[in-house]
Amino acid sequence: MDSFEEYAILAKKASYKMACISTEEKNNALLAMRDALLENADRICEANKNDMAMAEENNLAMPLQKRLFFDRTKLRGVCDGLDSLVALKDPVGTELLKTELDEGFILRKISCPIGVIGVIFESRPDALVQIASLCLKSGNSVCLKGGSEAMQSNRALFDVISKATIAAGLPEGWITLMESRSDVEAMLGLNQYIDLIIPRGSNAFVQYIMQHSSIPVLGHADGVCHLYIDKDADQKMALDLAIDGKTQYVAVCNATETLLIHEEIANEFLPKLAAAFSQKHVIIHGDDKVAAMLGVSKVEEWHHEYLDYEISVKIVGDMEEAIAHINEYGSGHTDAIVTKNEATAERFMDAVDSGNVYWNCSTRFSDGFKYGFGAEVGVSTSKLHARGPVGLEGLVTYKYKISGHGELAGDYAEGKKHFTHRPLATKE
Amino acid sequence: MDSFEEYAILAKKASYKMACISTEEKNNALLAMRDALLENADRICEANKNDMAMAEENNLAMPLQKRLFFDRTKLRGVCDGLDSLVALKDPVGTELLKTELDEGFILRKISCPIGVIGVIFESRPDALVQIASLCLKSGNSVCLKGGSEAMQSNRALFDVISKATIAAGLPEGWITLMESRSDVEAMLGLNQYIDLIIPRGSNAFVQYIMQHSSIPVLGHADGVCHLYIDKDADQKMALDLAIDGKTQYVAVCNATETLLIHEEIANEFLPKLAAAFSQKHVIIHGDDKVAAMLGVSKVEEWHHEYLDYEISVKIVGDMEEAIAHINEYGSGHTDAIVTKNEATAERFMDAVDSGNVYWNCSTRFSDGFKYGFGAEVGVSTSKLHARGPVGLEGLVTYKYKISGHGELAGDYAEGKKHFTHRPLATKE
Repeated sequence: MDSFEEYAILAKKASYKMACISTEEKNNALLAMRDALLENADRICEANKNDMAMAEENNLAMPLQKRLFFDRTKLRGVCDGLDSLVALKDPVGTELLKTELDEGFILRKISCPIGVIGVIFESRPDALVQIASLCLKSGNSVCLKGGSEAMQSNRALFDVISKATIAAGLPEGWITLMESRSDVEAMLGLNQYIDLIIPRGSNAFVQYIMQHSSIPVLGHADGVCHLYIDKDADQKMALDLAIDGKTQYVAVCNATETLLIHEEIANEFLPKLAAAFSQKHVIIHGDDKVAAMLGVSKVEEWHHEYLDYEISVKIVGDMEEAIAHINEYGSGHTDAIVTKNEATAERFMDAVDSGNVYWNCSTRFSDGFKYGFGAEVGVSTSKLHARGPVGLEGLVTYKYKISGHGELAGDYAEGKKHFTHRPLATKE
Repeated sequence: MDSFEEYAILAKKASYKMACISTEEKNNALLAMRDALLENADRICEANKNDMAMAEENNLAMPLQKRLFFDRTKLRGVCDGLDSLVALKDPVGTELLKTELDEGFILRKISCPIGVIGVIFESRPDALVQIASLCLKSGNSVCLKGGSEAMQSNRALFDVISKATIAAGLPEGWITLMESRSDVEAMLGLNQYIDLIIPRGSNAFVQYIMQHSSIPVLGHADGVCHLYIDKDADQKMALDLAIDGKTQYVAVCNATETLLIHEEIANEFLPKLAAAFSQKHVIIHGDDKVAAMLGVSKVEEWHHEYLDYEISVKIVGDMEEAIAHINEYGSGHTDAIVTKNEATAERFMDAVDSGNVYWNCSTRFSDGFKYGFGAEVGVSTSKLHARGPVGLEGLVTYKYKISGHGELAGDYAEGKKHFTHRPLATKE
């Protein structure tokens, strides 16, 4: 086989088998994956050494080299993750609704896999194992594309995982490794075989994927997260949240990128903010008033993700202006309010059109692990299907199953029979 | 204002207000809508008479003329529908998950409106009222486009509904009427303002919308529904289900279009089927074997929706062949099996990748009203967000709300504080 389409067709065929596999079979395959990874540790680490040597030769940036590095300690961590995943509830087969349509005529809404998921991920080789295992647990086929700098590591991991899981009973073709940019280009057009794409990586890359495929995309391009400091805010708390949101980890999507400050408290609050940010080496960019008051540069583009020790600051006339600003310039990721007024907070959280809306806490909490989801696929800024941090349940959909005894639509249309529509308890 | 984009911007702004409106305010607006429709019955019926006169002049096909007709009786029916909708539970504000992240630090997953929904519907003027009211109840703004043959009826209905609901407190711009094809074309490109498109109408039309917009689409292009008759089927039941699925209402998306028959029973079953279909004036098209046995024409294209008294019939070697056929040629709408064997039925329902999978009943049951959903937006063959018949819950998404007391991510990263991740009971 040489075209990616053939692999996609195989993945689709395998997905129908994946949908029928029991929880026990899936967990056994996950354990087989773990054992094979440990048995092949030498081979995997050797492959990673080759990638690392090439990365050094090519003068790959140090943070990227750090992400690429994969040794026995990282392998052990990945295998611990597999054990935790085995312990998680199977997201497939859950009864979401059960209704008696008529005596002995039962409608059930049951969670089921999505089908074939295409995932494009960054240079960390651990990502390959995590994504493959999440797709396995949720009963999906997966087409993987990692960073080219991790090619040898990914090949080794893929080979080990693929052989071990197929030997454990999973269908041939359930997992595929894409190696070239042209495979990814081909995937974007294969909406008859690929049901969902999860792109992880830079803003520009994710936007490219979203714009060049009619296949649904789960993920986020950027995170322009706001902290609105209300007139009724506890100003000490506001200061702490601004510092934490901006500086606790600047390179992440849920870092605070813009502060909106109510004009009634601006004169009092801004000097304190400037002093605190100055201590943390954060550069402030402001609107006209802020720029004049603090003698800082003006913001050129409010929809801007710094991912660095810089922040935009704006004074707003009231909360409605703050909400309008966030809905216009935000990215629907995570936005927070600081206020002592509960009604104000509720209004803010209802009106801000973002996946994560917070009252009196840092924007840095939007994350599947912090939410207690156990496993995370990514953070979605889409409004349909899955929104916010996405765990295993974002990798399943549902179908309606009816079991009957020969019921005819005609009998109900003619009034010979009548629907009861009696709600029944769903099983846990 | 003359460009549709300006209306879309207004609709988006209104949507943030719609998201904060209480259940009582929404129900009051629905009741105001009902009262205004009844008060303006003369004007609405007059407008419809003009549309009907034009339709007659243009020799519009009789079934279309029938659908276009709107009188006081239909108006009464529509108003009864509004009363039922008032009685339905508000789909917004439901607690879907509640977790204690730490003491007094609470995460809630809450259902919320999607935003702005574009709906393109067929010539029935009742559809305008139904769609507008469903969007209102779910807190969304709506941009409506009806059939051009119903233009005067739709203008009158829109004018009455818009004025009555805005007078009842809904925000200006929450409802917009598109009148031209160019408005629809403009809408397809406005993904910054329009969150979801629901196209209702012909297969070709829905496919056009799906292919020409990056906005998510909810609906179905066609329904190539299958009935698989297993070797372990009750043949009398199979015959009844085939007749009901094909002939109870031929023009609908959940009518049976293809029969798949297990080869072990084909010789016995086919003559009975041919006789029964002949009585109902159904024309059979078959695969090579069926065509030879019954002396009928061969099927040219298996993915074919007749919407008429015609059906495709194929003999399959076993159930796996039936499943593979359905997954290749079906449209993911509704597919059924007839068998006395429960394990066979479960395998079929798990492996067939359709929104509705049935055991021993007619394919004609996939419908929001038959499922007891009370109100229906349409039937979705997408796999993400909403699948199968879609009620009010298909018009909402969710957001994560956190309320805290100044929690910082740094405290958890440094181990000063620890997540409890304690599940809390959600309120009903």
